[in-house]
Amino acid sequence: MRGLMMDFPLLISTLLKFAAQNHADTEIVSRTVEGPIHRYTYADANRRSKKLAKALGRLGVNMGDRIATLAWNGYRHFEIYFGVSGSGAICHTINPRLFPEQIAYIINHAEDAYIFSDLTFVPLLEGIAGQIPGVKGFVIMTDEANMPKTKLKNALCYERLLAAEDDGYEWPVFDENTASALCYTSGTTGNPKGTLYSHRATVLHSYAVALPDSLHLSAREVAMPVVPMFHVNAWEFPYAAPLAGAKLVFPGPKMDGESLQELIETEGVTVTAGVPTVWMLLLAYLKKSGKRIDSLKRAVIGGSALPGSMIQEFRKYGTAAIHAWGMTECSSIGTVNLPKRKMEGLPEEERLKIEIKQGRPPFGVEFKITGDDGGELPRDGVAFGNLKMRGPWVCSRYFNEEESDVHDADGWFQTGDVATIDPDGYMHLTDRTKDVIKSGGEWISSIELENIAFGHPDVKEAAVISADHPKWGERPLLLAVLNEGANLAKEDLLAFYEGKIAKWCIPNDAIFVEELPHTATGKLLKTKLREDFAGYTFPD
Amino acid sequence: MRGLMMDFPLLISTLLKFAAQNHADTEIVSRTVEGPIHRYTYADANRRSKKLAKALGRLGVNMGDRIATLAWNGYRHFEIYFGVSGSGAICHTINPRLFPEQIAYIINHAEDAYIFSDLTFVPLLEGIAGQIPGVKGFVIMTDEANMPKTKLKNALCYERLLAAEDDGYEWPVFDENTASALCYTSGTTGNPKGTLYSHRATVLHSYAVALPDSLHLSAREVAMPVVPMFHVNAWEFPYAAPLAGAKLVFPGPKMDGESLQELIETEGVTVTAGVPTVWMLLLAYLKKSGKRIDSLKRAVIGGSALPGSMIQEFRKYGTAAIHAWGMTECSSIGTVNLPKRKMEGLPEEERLKIEIKQGRPPFGVEFKITGDDGGELPRDGVAFGNLKMRGPWVCSRYFNEEESDVHDADGWFQTGDVATIDPDGYMHLTDRTKDVIKSGGEWISSIELENIAFGHPDVKEAAVISADHPKWGERPLLLAVLNEGANLAKEDLLAFYEGKIAKWCIPNDAIFVEELPHTATGKLLKTKLREDFAGYTFPD
Repeated sequence: MRGLMMDFPLLISTLLKFAAQNHADTEIVSRTVEGPIHRYTYADANRRSKKLAKALGRLGVNMGDRIATLAWNGYRHFEIYFGVSGSGAICHTINPRLFPEQIAYIINHAEDAYIFSDLTFVPLLEGIAGQIPGVKGFVIMTDEANMPKTKLKNALCYERLLAAEDDGYEWPVFDENTASALCYTSGTTGNPKGTLYSHRATVLHSYAVALPDSLHLSAREVAMPVVPMFHVNAWEFPYAAPLAGAKLVFPGPKMDGESLQELIETEGVTVTAGVPTVWMLLLAYLKKSGKRIDSLKRAVIGGSALPGSMIQEFRKYGTAAIHAWGMTECSSIGTVNLPKRKMEGLPEEERLKIEIKQGRPPFGVEFKITGDDGGELPRDGVAFGNLKMRGPWVCSRYFNEEESDVHDADGWFQTGDVATIDPDGYMHLTDRTKDVIKSGGEWISSIELENIAFGHPDVKEAAVISADHPKWGERPLLLAVLNEGANLAKEDLLAFYEGKIAKWCIPNDAIFVEELPHTATGKLLKTKLREDFAGYTFPD
Repeated sequence: MRGLMMDFPLLISTLLKFAAQNHADTEIVSRTVEGPIHRYTYADANRRSKKLAKALGRLGVNMGDRIATLAWNGYRHFEIYFGVSGSGAICHTINPRLFPEQIAYIINHAEDAYIFSDLTFVPLLEGIAGQIPGVKGFVIMTDEANMPKTKLKNALCYERLLAAEDDGYEWPVFDENTASALCYTSGTTGNPKGTLYSHRATVLHSYAVALPDSLHLSAREVAMPVVPMFHVNAWEFPYAAPLAGAKLVFPGPKMDGESLQELIETEGVTVTAGVPTVWMLLLAYLKKSGKRIDSLKRAVIGGSALPGSMIQEFRKYGTAAIHAWGMTECSSIGTVNLPKRKMEGLPEEERLKIEIKQGRPPFGVEFKITGDDGGELPRDGVAFGNLKMRGPWVCSRYFNEEESDVHDADGWFQTGDVATIDPDGYMHLTDRTKDVIKSGGEWISSIELENIAFGHPDVKEAAVISADHPKWGERPLLLAVLNEGANLAKEDLLAFYEGKIAKWCIPNDAIFVEELPHTATGKLLKTKLREDFAGYTFPD
């Protein structure tokens, strides 16, 4: 028997429509590429997003067509999120920090019909224009006064496009499982792969993201996503803020400490989110300048592990640094680390032990950890295994890929991470699956070994990889970059591990190198290291 | 093109499964009908709800069968919510405060297969047993030691039923549009009508209810629904609390001030909800006893209008009294009144003017107001019209009713209320549609007139109804009950209106009566008054 409830599809356009109706004068403030601060309201954004949707129709864009963006966080990018997805097309955000050949690959793989680009990225597009013949045209996200001279064929002006349309447009209603957006991961191996989001997944996830134990968004909050809108939809801020009626602040291209502090202070930002690097710059600026961030209650930090020292540093400014974790494949946020009631009275060092974990899932995300045999491991905070997840906003298959080896036999998504889960549901990453060292049937976390080496005052950067071992199968090999002028013997570095970890986990050897290879997004490129040291044999 | 996201139905069982996995040791505390306080955890509740689901299967209950409850707020009622809906059957909560003949009507109309009853309501069921021949059996919600002697046929003991089952049960997976629960409204006219909820509607609504601008539920909150579980699913607390991992406190049959204060204090309740009557009793007790409710941050108040004086009284105890509004037909909560950022600095009297409104909708609820011609009226906070709503948790049709006149031609649900909506989305009820007085094409709010009369020191209760008028069509007639010993002339009462409302809105006549008729749930029964005064003619 079916319930007798109204049949309303969960559509991305309804988020903006809701905000325009109930939070009409709530502001969206953007630092523009052109320079000045731009401010308008949800009512304005809804009106202009509809005009964009209408303009797309005039350009011949149909439901399901891919429309790419190369853009910073700003109001025009926001309008594209809604104008494109709301009209039934697919908003494909591209990370401009990838190598140009990767960007060309992604554009061709996605078969993008049009590319919307900030002024910043016009030269980048000009450089690859010859490699992306399928693109019908380029829309430069600026007004006529700032329109550049460009060699790009069919270069259109965003503001001119909108100016040609009137207000008469109603958001179309269609199946909530329709594809809405596309985002490629910059994997460390192979070609980038695209996650294709649906309207349903995005709306459900937005509810989860706005909850008090996630980003805590309401009509009293001012939300500034520093995490880019080309990086997993800016962790859902552009959708969840209108859902909650929160004021939005977009930092544009300027993510330096001074620019962020200024926006926080002048706009009264209460919640923000980004990667640790950004916050290191902000904290350094605050220390140097003596300036404050009094309005900022919460800084949500993901993308890589949040150091305990950063939590303590933020606390000095009255800001809670909150660890979060997610992936492109789970629509961004999979866990957020907020305390439970029973933890509130704990002494600071006890709380810190919990706070450095990645956090616990909102309702909608389900985790398990498994051993190599696929058997589920206990949620005791000690056992670590392959982290798997499932839920209504988790990727079921990559876009335009025939086969996928990322799902297990039961349909769980294999994150490629190794983690523990404690009895309270807090997940803690210990390694990447392919980086863990399998020594005689036991697993050793490469990250744990790297963190210890990093704690040595002479070490600038460290990587631990597995190398073949005749007796144990694999054993850890430490590769370290020393600080300039340091004079450390490898025996002393290895001795530094004693007492800090079980003896059998200590690396068998250490090699000092000049530098370590990184991906375009700054992650250690361990595949390259494993190739470079493929012929390595441990000393007897 | 479909998105490539996992296909996960939104099922009520997943809420409890989530809580059992991530908030296993979070408590559910109940004051029992038998007397003592009972405490256990989400893990326990999940285990026992599964046993109940298994027991239902053994009783021959199938998907779609209706299982009724006559019960207070407590852990066994909570288990029935999940055991019944989770297994695919329909949990039909009955309001025991209805007249016995209405209860018999509801049971027969719903075709309930089994009735689960607290000890309290066994005599009530014995009284109507002869009128409900379709019921296969009665499950008394107690253990064997407390099992009463009863004339009910097939009276089973709840704890014995559970004890017979083992742990081997997996929550079944089915279509999220499946019916989950049924609740009848005690209308002021005609027979009660049933709203049939779906799993999808309930899960979506639970997300909305847990948001910071709704009930604000997290793993740091302790939630006590005083609103009964037979009253629109206790405003979704039993679903939204496990979604958020909040501790739950159930007051059982004791809703007097002393009992509530004790639970708030001993269990650290942070958020509660109920009707104004309950809070008047609590506030009176606090005043008398000098006791406090320090942990309580928010009291959500609905069911009837929240007086400004109650907001101010709660503020003395550090508790925010929050106005909310909803209906059985919208799964409970349609609006909550929390301030926006721009209102936080307003002087108290300005804020109070906003706080007495019913509030603004969470994402998922859409309102409009229309005039008699169906045309939409402006959202200016002044124009008042018929309040209509729609959304994924709003009733599309009543259970087992062929025709419904509650939806307009465009499918909007007609609430039967008259309201204003201001530019910020705050809705303010001014009257019931059938009680509004239509005088020469203008609408006059009966509630506004009643509130003014109620403000006169000699008036105990007041009702305003429309009476036919040869010139104006309808004009307001005031019916008032005076305080004992009061000696007030009707001319003086009518003169009391002057300066408080536009002259043309003042009632044409006042009649003093001994008492006013009420429904079983305490609302003014104006249909009866209109019948009683059908032959009335205004003095010339």
